[in-house]
This record gives sequence, structure tokens and C-alpha cells, in this order.
Amino acid sequence: MRFATYTAEDETYYGAITDAGAVALSPDFPQWPTLLDVVQAGELGALTAAAEGRAVTHTDFRYEMVLPNAQRILCVGVNFPDRNAEYKDGSAQPKYMSLFPRFASGFTGHDRPLIRPPENHTLDYEGEVAIVIGKGGRRIKAEDAYDHIAALTICNEGTIRDWVRHAKFNVTQGKNWDKSGSIGPWIVPFTDASQLDDARIVTRVNGEVRQDDTLNRMMFPIREEIAYISTFMTLQPGDVIVTGTPTGSGARFDPPIYLKPGDVVEIEVNGIGTLRNGIEDEVV
Amino acid sequence: MRFATYTAEDETYYGAITDAGAVALSPDFPQWPTLLDVVQAGELGALTAAAEGRAVTHTDFRYEMVLPNAQRILCVGVNFPDRNAEYKDGSAQPKYMSLFPRFASGFTGHDRPLIRPPENHTLDYEGEVAIVIGKGGRRIKAEDAYDHIAALTICNEGTIRDWVRHAKFNVTQGKNWDKSGSIGPWIVPFTDASQLDDARIVTRVNGEVRQDDTLNRMMFPIREEIAYISTFMTLQPGDVIVTGTPTGSGARFDPPIYLKPGDVVEIEVNGIGTLRNGIEDEVV
Repeated sequence: MRFATYTAEDETYYGAITDAGAVALSPDFPQWPTLLDVVQAGELGALTAAAEGRAVTHTDFRYEMVLPNAQRILCVGVNFPDRNAEYKDGSAQPKYMSLFPRFASGFTGHDRPLIRPPENHTLDYEGEVAIVIGKGGRRIKAEDAYDHIAALTICNEGTIRDWVRHAKFNVTQGKNWDKSGSIGPWIVPFTDASQLDDARIVTRVNGEVRQDDTLNRMMFPIREEIAYISTFMTLQPGDVIVTGTPTGSGARFDPPIYLKPGDVVEIEVNGIGTLRNGIEDEVV
Repeated sequence: MRFATYTAEDETYYGAITDAGAVALSPDFPQWPTLLDVVQAGELGALTAAAEGRAVTHTDFRYEMVLPNAQRILCVGVNFPDRNAEYKDGSAQPKYMSLFPRFASGFTGHDRPLIRPPENHTLDYEGEVAIVIGKGGRRIKAEDAYDHIAALTICNEGTIRDWVRHAKFNVTQGKNWDKSGSIGPWIVPFTDASQLDDARIVTRVNGEVRQDDTLNRMMFPIREEIAYISTFMTLQPGDVIVTGTPTGSGARFDPPIYLKPGDVVEIEVNGIGTLRNGIEDEVV
């Protein structure tokens, strides 16, 4: 089952996505105005039941960022062994994970363009799996962590690479350009550990494979991410954790190969789907 | 005029604060359920008018974090000359400001305790002025920046110092412990440039002055903060920018002097007020 936020005839809906089109479900649930509200209510199961046997309502629609009103999006940095080596500072595996928040405004939806701003052209891709918290908690034990996940999705954690190093600390300004990344196309309910344990991320640019790795190689597995983050902040339903990208971003090449208008980035994760975005220059 | 979010008899209100008590205004404006909604609607003026000549409704109340549902809080790091020198890395003034987001969950209200967690006792204070955006915009010019500010408040940008350095980059996990900081007591409408240009921050711990500096000494003035941030993200009404702390946090002492239960931190800013918080150990 795949649930998306989408726009058809200037109306925004959430609904189930089938191979034939979208089944609008939001009109059935006025008590939950957005897909985030459904997650926060713990009611993805109600959507699944409602979608059962229903006819497609929209075949002509555009995807929105899957949770456009997500309030807390936390990204894990440098979480694959070769990524750490990319920094060429001779450091061993770090003891703790690197974390940074991104605002929802930094993300667009599936099949919409990532925006390259006029100020800087080092727009880069990062393919990642994102998890959506379904059950909140503080100091969650790693062995219980999967019980707190409601759904999975895909993130292109797009970055203006030069601006990541603007400041003495923190990557904030390179990670929060309007619509520089994407999340979607949909969320998939998380019902079985293998959905994460066997997941593989493959990122292609114009059809060429740039990233290809499996979540089981993460330095900080998702169970540990949830345990660590919930040590300092109470996780809440609807929180999103973007779990880390494999080696192979454009910055890794010598010289770097950044994204430019006309390029198409596809991030495929088995069991979730493929998130695809073109690139457009911002019209200022 | 001072507008706060507060709780009285288990109900949460927003209203005007006078020397005699609180004037509840939220019951008059059901279209704006929270003070953030008022700011986002650009209607602080309506509150000012409604408060005119009204009798106090509550004398027994507790302050909440002034905008408890703030969705984007962006903090500026290392923004006073001596703070940069504190890092003792020989670096000249940085070319760009350091920025990091904090979630609203990291802040409590005036006269409520900052929480020291059992995992780490390096809880530290940082006295700062916070601005609340009233008019959104992208690529705002520095000379126009003040036109985009709706109100001012005070922030104790409380930090678990050891956790700031957990990761290779980013201070996220030291800056987002539940209720480790505070914002309030109230917001004050911003009507005159001198409210910022002549502002002085004085932080006292148990009555002893620890920080004392003026905003006009900032390395990156508030006008430049707004210009720079709005380069990469569209500022929206209700966004909060925590503008930077002077030298003198507890980490600066040798050995460092961290906050402990029984301590009281007061941050006074002329023209805004005094934000006061005790310290309590978390009950786990």
C-alpha cells in the first residue's frame, strides 16, 4: 500500500496510489486534513481499509512532497563507511552520528524539479531512506526501535555543496535551500523488519548508477538512530528521520559533477519505489 | 505591549501582560487559536487594540514557551567577537555566520525549570535576543530587513555542552534536549529600530553577572542575518531567529561552571524584559 499527497485540478488530496492512478481518501476523513494528521493519529490502517477495492479517482495528478507539513525532519550525516573516508581527514569511524535538521520547505515532491539557485551551482544529490515515526517515545531501546516506525519513504537530500562549508560549524545553510531536495513519491506502511534490513539504495543520474549500497552497511543502523535521537528529544508521531546516504554523491568525483538543468536523478529503493526529479534553474 | 502564552486553571491562553496580571485575549479571537496564528495573520495590532483599557482576567498563571508551536527556529552561533576568540583556534572573524535549527520542544517558558538530564550535566546558558518574523520574503535586502520583524523576545539558548561536540559536524544533539532552553516571557511588538540597535543583554546566574554586551557589537548584525538566511530559504511569518549570545557562558570558565539544581538564570534585555529560569534534574 502506498499513500501520497497529490494535487489534481488545483485541489490537494492524500490517497492511495495504484498502478492505474490515485484513489482520493482525504475526502473520507475530514478529521485528518493532511497525511501527517493520519500518521499522528496512528491511523494508516484506516487508510488501508478505506482503499480496499476502491476505484481510481484521479489519473491526472502531480505529487506533492509526501508530508508537506512535516514539522521535524532530522537527517543523519556521514553514515556509510566510505562516506566517512571521503572526508579524507584520516578519522576513524566516529563514536556518535552527525545529525542536522532540515525544514520541510527544502523539499519538493516526486516528478517535480529540484531548484538550482543563481547564487551557487553546486547542487548535489544524496539518495536516502527516510522513516516516519508512528509511536513517540523517549530513550527508546534499540531493540524496540522498529516498533516506533509507521512508514518508509525515499529522500533526495539535495544539497548546495559549497554552502555546507560556509560556517565554522553546521551544514544548515547548504541543506535548507527552498526545494533543493525531495521526499516521496509516497509513504509505505512499515510492517516487517525486512523492509529496512534488506533495503538497497540505488541512485542514478541520467541513467548512470552513482550510488548503490545496502542499509545493512550503515555505521549507525536505524535502530541506533532512533535510540540515540530519543535520548535527547522525545520522538513524536510524524517526525521524519532521513537515515543517511551511501558514497557516490557528485562531490565525490574529481572534479565534482554537480546537477544541472536537464539532468534527471532517480533514487530506487526495493520495496518502496523510485523517487525521480529533474533539475531546473530558479527563475528570479 | 507584551503578549504571552500562559496557562491558568489548566487552560492555555494568549493575552496581554500588565503589571497587575494577564488579560486573556485568545477567547476574543477564535480564528487565531494560538499566538503564532496571530503573528502569521499579521494581526498583533488587533491584540494591542483589544487589550486597550481591559481589566485583568488572571493573576494566578504560569507562562508557557511564548510560541509553543513555532515551526522554524533558527539560531545564529558565535556572533560576538569574544565568542569567536573563545574557540582558541586562531581563526579570524568568519566570513559567514554559523546557523543551526532548534525544535520548539527544546524550550520551556519563563519561570519554569530548565531540565538537566541524567545522561550529562554540562547544562549551560546562553542569553540572546530572538526576533519573530512578521512579513515573509526571499532575498530580503539588509536595509529592508527590519520591516520584516513583527516582535522581539528573549531566549536562553540552553545547551548540553558536551553533546555539542558529539559529532564531526553540527551541534544538533547538544542543542535540542527537551526543555533545555527557554523563550519568553513574552513577545514585544517591534515598532522602532532602537529596540534592537540600543539593546543590551545582561545574563545573571544567582545574581552574578556572567554576560553583558550590546547588540551593536554583533559580528553579523540582525539586518545581515535576515538578508543571509532569506537568500537560501523564504522566510515566513512566525519564523524565529535567535540572534546570537555574548561571551560569558559557563563553558568559558576554567574549569567550566555548569548549571545545577537550585541555580537561577536571569536574562535581561532593556525594552523587552527579564527571562528567568531555575534548574531541575530530570525525573526519569
